Amino acid sequence: MNKFKNINPTIIVIFGGTGDLAKRKLFPAFQNLYLDGRMSEKFQIIALGRAEKSNEDFRSYVLENLNTFSRKKGLSDSETQKFLSHISYQSFDIDKEDSYQRLNERINSIDEAFEERANRLFYLSITPSFITTISSNIKKIGLAANAKQDRIIIEKPFGYDKTSAIELNEMLSHTFKEEQIYRIDHYLGKETVQNILAFRFGNSMFEPLWSRNFIDFVQITVAEEVGVEERGGFYEGVGALKDMIQNHLLQILCMTAMEAPASLEADDIRNRKADVLKSIRRIKPDEVDHYIVRGQYDAGFIKGNPVPGYRQDKGIAPDSNTETYVAMKIYLDNWRWQGIPFYLRTGKRMEEKQSSIIIQFKPVPHSSFSYGKEGMTPNRLIINIQPSMDIKLQFMTKKPGLSLSLEPAEMIFDYFSCSTMSPEAYETLIADALAGDPTLFMRWDQVEQAWDAIDTIQQVWKTIAPTNFPNYKAGSWGPEEADELLARQGHAWIRNTQNKINEVTPDDTDIQ
Amino acid sequence: MNKFKNINPTIIVIFGGTGDLAKRKLFPAFQNLYLDGRMSEKFQIIALGRAEKSNEDFRSYVLENLNTFSRKKGLSDSETQKFLSHISYQSFDIDKEDSYQRLNERINSIDEAFEERANRLFYLSITPSFITTISSNIKKIGLAANAKQDRIIIEKPFGYDKTSAIELNEMLSHTFKEEQIYRIDHYLGKETVQNILAFRFGNSMFEPLWSRNFIDFVQITVAEEVGVEERGGFYEGVGALKDMIQNHLLQILCMTAMEAPASLEADDIRNRKADVLKSIRRIKPDEVDHYIVRGQYDAGFIKGNPVPGYRQDKGIAPDSNTETYVAMKIYLDNWRWQGIPFYLRTGKRMEEKQSSIIIQFKPVPHSSFSYGKEGMTPNRLIINIQPSMDIKLQFMTKKPGLSLSLEPAEMIFDYFSCSTMSPEAYETLIADALAGDPTLFMRWDQVEQAWDAIDTIQQVWKTIAPTNFPNYKAGSWGPEEADELLARQGHAWIRNTQNKINEVTPDDTDIQ
Repeated sequence: MNKFKNINPTIIVIFGGTGDLAKRKLFPAFQNLYLDGRMSEKFQIIALGRAEKSNEDFRSYVLENLNTFSRKKGLSDSETQKFLSHISYQSFDIDKEDSYQRLNERINSIDEAFEERANRLFYLSITPSFITTISSNIKKIGLAANAKQDRIIIEKPFGYDKTSAIELNEMLSHTFKEEQIYRIDHYLGKETVQNILAFRFGNSMFEPLWSRNFIDFVQITVAEEVGVEERGGFYEGVGALKDMIQNHLLQILCMTAMEAPASLEADDIRNRKADVLKSIRRIKPDEVDHYIVRGQYDAGFIKGNPVPGYRQDKGIAPDSNTETYVAMKIYLDNWRWQGIPFYLRTGKRMEEKQSSIIIQFKPVPHSSFSYGKEGMTPNRLIINIQPSMDIKLQFMTKKPGLSLSLEPAEMIFDYFSCSTMSPEAYETLIADALAGDPTLFMRWDQVEQAWDAIDTIQQVWKTIAPTNFPNYKAGSWGPEEADELLARQGHAWIRNTQNKINEVTPDDTDIQ
Repeated sequence: MNKFKNINPTIIVIFGGTGDLAKRKLFPAFQNLYLDGRMSEKFQIIALGRAEKSNEDFRSYVLENLNTFSRKKGLSDSETQKFLSHISYQSFDIDKEDSYQRLNERINSIDEAFEERANRLFYLSITPSFITTISSNIKKIGLAANAKQDRIIIEKPFGYDKTSAIELNEMLSHTFKEEQIYRIDHYLGKETVQNILAFRFGNSMFEPLWSRNFIDFVQITVAEEVGVEERGGFYEGVGALKDMIQNHLLQILCMTAMEAPASLEADDIRNRKADVLKSIRRIKPDEVDHYIVRGQYDAGFIKGNPVPGYRQDKGIAPDSNTETYVAMKIYLDNWRWQGIPFYLRTGKRMEEKQSSIIIQFKPVPHSSFSYGKEGMTPNRLIINIQPSMDIKLQFMTKKPGLSLSLEPAEMIFDYFSCSTMSPEAYETLIADALAGDPTLFMRWDQVEQAWDAIDTIQQVWKTIAPTNFPNYKAGSWGPEEADELLARQGHAWIRNTQNKINEVTPDDTDIQ
């Protein structure tokens, strides 16, 4: 049962080995997996980068960053040195065939030293525009010729719309079979996101309630406090719809709404998720404004500190129309969820960092209880993904005292405090990729369906510029229109899901 | 809506005013209600007792006991004195008409001082054998002639079997109308017991699960650590079946299993409770041993301290066959609960004091999860009544780590910590009796049905003496047969529902 028991010898090639993601997430993840005995002793990481560097220099650079970014601190020198000895650096020019030839030689010499042909994991931690070049060179040299042993991990975004994603996939398919391609969405590696499946299908008491019969609506929020930071140039061409909704939020939607999978095998789970994406009601161009709200932040205050507006941020055009906020109402056309709105929202420069799923149950059909001024609150199940990692059940209880009055109360299960330190999302996902388990990665049809679900929105927004940008203040909860989106149905965004913030937030530095 | 807003002038007459219950529960309850403004300024308590005492002496005695037993401490002298000034004492011989005449004179003089005819509340805190005499004298003198204004509170046991209860009720009915009779079961006044209704019918998410479709079985436990203490003489003629099952446990069963009442009015709630009692499957004499286990404690250890067996306790016959433990399996013959066992148990000298309701849900219909050595635990809702006052939801969650394994976890709502100090059960019940709200008191048909439900058991036990007494050790969880009772159906008693014990346990000193 333990898929990690026999990890095969593996050569990991990181394209973008000197980049931000490698530094902050990948090397710490590999190190922790190694320390936890999750990697074969026969493994080598070849980091590729443009600059000329010696192995020694690169290892010092990695060591420095491990000290800063790894969740495991205070390791002995010998532990660290042992891990570092598995890392080498190669100066690399993505456009030059010669670079790939040298990479091939290096790989072959490692295989010889291992005395066996090791698995190969190509991690593409680079700008999407390089994918095509890398892929065709890998094919030309035959670097990933063994479909059973060789895998490629690709970071989002996978394409920038449905058409480009299809093209990209078509191109990749010349080099890789579908089962070799690991499209990563780090949200799926988060403990609290994975726990959704465990919670829903490891318990008998929630699933009977999990439908249009008992649920009033669902809210999925991924709110960030940060702005675009150093990523302005990248973000300008992307925006919140593509950067967050198309991947993270739709994936959380899938976990929340999917039917029970026949088994926990990758394709059973991914089939049920794909069903959700297919059942998302496609909207017509003239309905876009009815179902979706876009926003862009103006200057404001985050926790009392003044911050500039998006258009004043570094690398942003002063008349930019890129959206930094999206709220949308989604209907799923299937038996379980017909007529139940799923409200999704994401934004930068929100009042607080908060990723959560809220299941609001229908009101009681009849109540004779008297209650206080706070009123009767419907039952809610709140799954906090980050920074809090907890599950709360909000319900009504008898107000202590002589009369039978009610007041809201909650039961809390703190996911983080209950257990040993959780692995980071990237650890989980890399371990799975090393073990050849694609469950938590996006299969092509999921990616395609997710693009298809937002295709009309993209097209309409491309042709009709927003007239009211910037339309929300930094440090607020987004534009007023997002409140109206819900108010039309008598609903409202539920705030303050995170009464207590965990002190340890393992996945706090988000790489999107 | 607030029934306590206009509390009428009331004269309270306590028969047994120098007794244990009055000292530990009644005077503290009256004092706290008074301090909370829940009593009219026009009220007088007349305590009746055999001994000759001056009012001053009696007030000193009450004051001393208030300091020991009241949950409100550190009151100012003037507060206390003001309350005490409402108390007077009368030496009283239950058998002498003259005593009732003097009581009548005293009541009339208070009415005169109040300048109106006050309500009258007769609290019978005496041995049940005196009820007939008191009742007929009250009738003779016309002390409770006004059915709208005059009430009587009767402590359990109400009779000692069905026949005697019918006789007692018949006799009482010559003096009192049903709506004047408040049959008290202090368990119904407990916050956590009252909260069952709030929890079930103030929330939309539990009621859909609350039936044979999703529940596997229900366990109701009222376990005591104490033995018979000073009550040996009384207990010998009673036993656990009559002392606990017939009232407390069957009442908790009613709250747990009842249908939703049309309203929260007394008769709507009591009708639905009576339905439950009526639907208890009556068993045949030869089935008694199959459904019910009786036990008596032997010497043993409570929290490490040696304690004698029941037969060695003060006032107990050395060959006593009185049961100090009962476990039984009950089926309710109705649509909601057909085929679902309700396991009830109560005992003295148990391992720990614990009153709880456990709802165990059915196992998941299908699971693909791998799980640790603790195994897959079914979902459980645990309602702790005392000493803990909390609600726990036990469920499975993802074990933090790289694989999708499950482990049991729980959400907790601590009823006590969330709020101001709760009123004691007797405060709640007396406040209701003063306000004329009989909801939490037992209507005659409830009492009759409860006796009827255990009638066959009583008859069989009376004729067939147990052969194995004593059959459990003090400090254990009862006789082995009680485990077998559940094991036959693949079930087991669930222990350790009270992981954390509240420091403040307001109703810790039980008066049964």
